[in-house]
Amino acid sequence: MKIAVDAMGGDHAPRAVVEGMALAISDGGVPRENLLLVGQAAALAPLIDEVGLEGVAVEDASQSIGMDESPASAIRGKRDSSIVRGMRTVAEGRAQAFISAGNTGAVVAASALVLGRLAGVSRPGIAVPVPTHRGPCVVIDVGANIYCKPDHMLQYAVMASEYCKASFGRADPVVGLLNIGEEEGKGNPLIQQVHALLQGSGVTYRGFIEGQDIMSGVVDVVVCEGFVGNVILKVAEGFSESFLHDIFRKVAETTNGSPDVKAYMGSLKQRFDYAATGGAPLLGVEGSIIICHGRSHGGAIANAIQVATNFTRSRVNERIVDEVAKVSMLHRVADFFHIDQN
Amino acid sequence: MKIAVDAMGGDHAPRAVVEGMALAISDGGVPRENLLLVGQAAALAPLIDEVGLEGVAVEDASQSIGMDESPASAIRGKRDSSIVRGMRTVAEGRAQAFISAGNTGAVVAASALVLGRLAGVSRPGIAVPVPTHRGPCVVIDVGANIYCKPDHMLQYAVMASEYCKASFGRADPVVGLLNIGEEEGKGNPLIQQVHALLQGSGVTYRGFIEGQDIMSGVVDVVVCEGFVGNVILKVAEGFSESFLHDIFRKVAETTNGSPDVKAYMGSLKQRFDYAATGGAPLLGVEGSIIICHGRSHGGAIANAIQVATNFTRSRVNERIVDEVAKVSMLHRVADFFHIDQN
Repeated sequence: MKIAVDAMGGDHAPRAVVEGMALAISDGGVPRENLLLVGQAAALAPLIDEVGLEGVAVEDASQSIGMDESPASAIRGKRDSSIVRGMRTVAEGRAQAFISAGNTGAVVAASALVLGRLAGVSRPGIAVPVPTHRGPCVVIDVGANIYCKPDHMLQYAVMASEYCKASFGRADPVVGLLNIGEEEGKGNPLIQQVHALLQGSGVTYRGFIEGQDIMSGVVDVVVCEGFVGNVILKVAEGFSESFLHDIFRKVAETTNGSPDVKAYMGSLKQRFDYAATGGAPLLGVEGSIIICHGRSHGGAIANAIQVATNFTRSRVNERIVDEVAKVSMLHRVADFFHIDQN
Repeated sequence: MKIAVDAMGGDHAPRAVVEGMALAISDGGVPRENLLLVGQAAALAPLIDEVGLEGVAVEDASQSIGMDESPASAIRGKRDSSIVRGMRTVAEGRAQAFISAGNTGAVVAASALVLGRLAGVSRPGIAVPVPTHRGPCVVIDVGANIYCKPDHMLQYAVMASEYCKASFGRADPVVGLLNIGEEEGKGNPLIQQVHALLQGSGVTYRGFIEGQDIMSGVVDVVVCEGFVGNVILKVAEGFSESFLHDIFRKVAETTNGSPDVKAYMGSLKQRFDYAATGGAPLLGVEGSIIICHGRSHGGAIANAIQVATNFTRSRVNERIVDEVAKVSMLHRVADFFHIDQN
């Protein structure tokens, strides 16, 4: 298996990426020959030497796409960017996975252009595992698609369920639809239509959930529009940053560095530091595309390499194709016979 | 000034409401004769005795609306409910403000039906002051209106700016539009249209902000769709509940009740306990309507009574009418002359 990593993507690139790779090799036990660094070879050489990454293959890419560039035009204009080149290594079968902490919109756009969608999938979606007391809860979509239609969201439920089974060992993932109330009849027309579709689908559907339920772990998958999902993620991030960090400092001061409290705070911090945990798959594209937070440090990149490895090994894309086909068949049959899916 | 309070609204009603009133009198210095309890008089009598609220006027209302009832039909069917009766006391000028921790949808629907909108206002919006390091940041709308149009959101910006000036003493409140990126061109068509309108309006507009910016206090007002605002609030609530409470317990255990840490944690808890802080105004209706969290305890009700008092005293509704008129005049002039408001 070969995993390509965008050396130029993210606020701390290329150093964080190269360091993350080294970490994946030293601590994660990832074979050196499984990794492929994508970026400006000449510029990367001294860093590779410094970090001790000699022997890792480099795919030369002369251009890089900035975090603030418009995705569509960047992709069209920069054919030799690390993002487009990285996607190509997957499209050409020279790598099975591509990881980037760069411009998320550009990664999504490039995946559509270079890799294409999995058979039957209407729109890819970004699936973020959010930490809860009962393990990760997968929130989909967090911004790949801000023009969500009901059938996109139905497919998100199906794809994220398969991802949950394959990556977190849940036998029968429970799906919730994010709404502003749990009662029937709540929500806008889009939500109402998705609600009807999910009830008639093969996924294990719990019904509506609300914002506070995401972190309580009552469901394994939360389906929402890309706009809403993106905002949620950033609110949680803001909350974590503003307050947890504050608390840590205050507690450290007043407990005079009690090792017990320190260890607890450390574990909590790690759990909620969104820049330190890496790797949200873009579900629904032909390949394993893993998106990292723009502020990723080495640890997040190393983690994403692990996520990419597991994602690829689990062959979840094959299951997604099968399950999406089943759901759309059900849908067509119901349509044909005018069966009320409620 | 008379403030009517829904005795039957909220998970802990009527006890929490009656206790909250007592607290407002004893600790808040609110004159007993300024308060009016709305609910089933016979059922409230023993509680009023117990809490020592004798002498507070009671407006008898034989019905109450449950938290899960459909707002529209509940309002139509229960003309003698505490929510409808409470609104009437304001409509008839017997009270200036009405507070409820009951069914939010029903409060919004009843306000439209019984009170009506302020002159020129298209849609009322719920404005929630969210705690930040730099004081409250007002998020509008958090669920009064899930069919937001561009001009509704423009008016939200205007109304919340006036509320910020009147209630938090901000001379020139800065407005941000919640989006999934800060760059021009980001977001869906609704957001793009609101962005254009805000640039041409009289409000101090900072442009797009993202989810993490709400709690950082970079703006005084955050404008968003009701659906998104509602989800945000509940995510923040879920975060606060799941984790802050967890941290408090752990820290209390390991610091053996250090008074310094305890005091800090207490202040933090108070700041983020959404059930303990009360009072979000429904902006844009004829009167002072203050909405409390369904799980409000006495402290939140007492706080809401303070909010209602200040809101009414500040005569912010008059300023809202003036400013909304100015903005819509600007808008019409621009339309007439085909002026590009960007």
